[in-house]
Amino acid sequence: MDYFRANIEAASGYEPGFQPQGLDVVKLNTNENPYPPSPEVLKSLAGIEAEQLRRYPDPLGNRFRDAAAELNGVERENIICCNGGDDLLRIAVQCFCDEKRLLAYPVPTYSLYPVLGSLQNCKTIEVRFDKRFNLPGKLAATNATLTIVCNPNAPSGTIIPCDELAKLAGAIRGVLLIDEAYVDFAEDNCVSLAKRFSNVIILRSMSKGYSLAGLRFGYGIADKSLIAGLMKAKDSYNVNSVSVAAATVAIKDQGYFRKNIEKVVKQRRRLRQELEELGFEMLPSSTNFILVRHKQAEAVEIHKELMQKSIYVRYFDYPGLRDKLRITVGAKKQNDRLVASLVEILS
Amino acid sequence: MDYFRANIEAASGYEPGFQPQGLDVVKLNTNENPYPPSPEVLKSLAGIEAEQLRRYPDPLGNRFRDAAAELNGVERENIICCNGGDDLLRIAVQCFCDEKRLLAYPVPTYSLYPVLGSLQNCKTIEVRFDKRFNLPGKLAATNATLTIVCNPNAPSGTIIPCDELAKLAGAIRGVLLIDEAYVDFAEDNCVSLAKRFSNVIILRSMSKGYSLAGLRFGYGIADKSLIAGLMKAKDSYNVNSVSVAAATVAIKDQGYFRKNIEKVVKQRRRLRQELEELGFEMLPSSTNFILVRHKQAEAVEIHKELMQKSIYVRYFDYPGLRDKLRITVGAKKQNDRLVASLVEILS
Repeated sequence: MDYFRANIEAASGYEPGFQPQGLDVVKLNTNENPYPPSPEVLKSLAGIEAEQLRRYPDPLGNRFRDAAAELNGVERENIICCNGGDDLLRIAVQCFCDEKRLLAYPVPTYSLYPVLGSLQNCKTIEVRFDKRFNLPGKLAATNATLTIVCNPNAPSGTIIPCDELAKLAGAIRGVLLIDEAYVDFAEDNCVSLAKRFSNVIILRSMSKGYSLAGLRFGYGIADKSLIAGLMKAKDSYNVNSVSVAAATVAIKDQGYFRKNIEKVVKQRRRLRQELEELGFEMLPSSTNFILVRHKQAEAVEIHKELMQKSIYVRYFDYPGLRDKLRITVGAKKQNDRLVASLVEILS
Repeated sequence: MDYFRANIEAASGYEPGFQPQGLDVVKLNTNENPYPPSPEVLKSLAGIEAEQLRRYPDPLGNRFRDAAAELNGVERENIICCNGGDDLLRIAVQCFCDEKRLLAYPVPTYSLYPVLGSLQNCKTIEVRFDKRFNLPGKLAATNATLTIVCNPNAPSGTIIPCDELAKLAGAIRGVLLIDEAYVDFAEDNCVSLAKRFSNVIILRSMSKGYSLAGLRFGYGIADKSLIAGLMKAKDSYNVNSVSVAAATVAIKDQGYFRKNIEKVVKQRRRLRQELEELGFEMLPSSTNFILVRHKQAEAVEIHKELMQKSIYVRYFDYPGLRDKLRITVGAKKQNDRLVASLVEILS
């Protein structure tokens, strides 16, 4: 078939994480939050009226924008709503990159970035992290028109301090997009950089901290003129009436949100400790997952044996990751079963 | 600001139709269905469970694909789910067009097509319809890699017979996308061409015939290899768990759907007749709107006076349309008020 552009023909597309079915499965492979979303979300879905479905949605999702602006100490015009954080990533790559305008990011990181680069047919520059996942100095010298830093980073779970990203934003001539999809589980975030720098975009997701991966809702925070430009490239109605209503009540329920995060952070602490006792090494995690390496056992073998026990964690066949496993922090009982199974496997 | 690519900087973006608020408004300007969606849709929203929100959605929306495949006499692999029909249009332009690969379509038509062309930085060829909106012969000779025909066409409401589009599909070397967003109100559709030709994509929308404009759900029907290619360029999770559930029950409720369509078609017939009696001329309409031209009065004046009466219809400041108004077929009472107001204005 030769209908497609050569870069599309050559692209492999993004491979979503495996979604095992079944009731007895412990699913710790795609970084979903183990706890349910705010009960307000289900109430808002039950309260949707026919009229909200019959008519076109607000194209800008202003109800959500106002709620997100208040939370982040910015104005409505500093916010763009997106059909999941991935939507904003695509929009940014389309706005800033092409065959002559480069996309740069440190690796290993979220595997969607190179896919978006290939679809946009732009050259991508991958700069390797060191073993501790510090910000690579070379990233400031790529001459890229869009630099993406996933922070906290997936799949390492590590976080780069904001002052280092501030230096990067000041040093580059293009746009710096800080993908904060996992930031709700961290101690700090970089929203201040979107206020200080005209070339910084902060990406946020409702999938992780708000337990709404199924809803597809994310947003961007940036300088007003940057947001106005991004708006031109989004689908006219990229977020629907139902998801705007649900995401708005979720982000307003900060009490529930904070308790949810606390529970995940508590389980993360406990899981780290027990995994260390089992001979796993790991860097500090600012996310809802932990990247671990066992001192003796092979990652690929542990992965396989866990799967046989219906426990799914993530193994990446990728340079620098083949000796590691990425384990999502589950709810207490899921973590209990994971640890008990690892004890069996490693003994 | 020079962060953006020049084509994005120059793009004006799509301008969604005006959404007047207020209870007393008669809104006949954006082609929404005047009747509510199937009651099954509200039930499905009320029945969404926390687990469906917490977890990632099925990336392909297979439940909906199966229902749409059954309805259209094709297989699951012939269907792609989209976040509104606009999403599929964007994907197609990204897959087939670039600076050296042209986008062609007859005009006047849906005003999103040139916006998508400008965002993709591809050259667009606009071929003018004749006064009766027949398929322009020149469209077969543009050498475009993507040709879009909105059929039935907006804003004319006219339809081109399938055998003429079959000839076009056979004559061009690129892809023919037939945008059937309004086809539910027509006597016929061209799904057979997606089965006969490897270069035809049929676009369908749940916004009009199924009264779900607020939900953002559309789909494409095409040859399996074409669908597989389009899949690579879609966002990994472009449709969410809630909209897949709602769209699936809506498309399965064909009994409700057919009654809904019948009501609109009945009101269209009645509105045409009364508008003709008031001195309006119009072509046959296969959609839920009518493009009308008054024999004496100025379109722009009628538009203004209707607005003063809180009745909104669509006026396009565009070549060939400045003497016309596009009026969405409303529910009985809305049409009553429109006609009564026109009687006043024209007397």
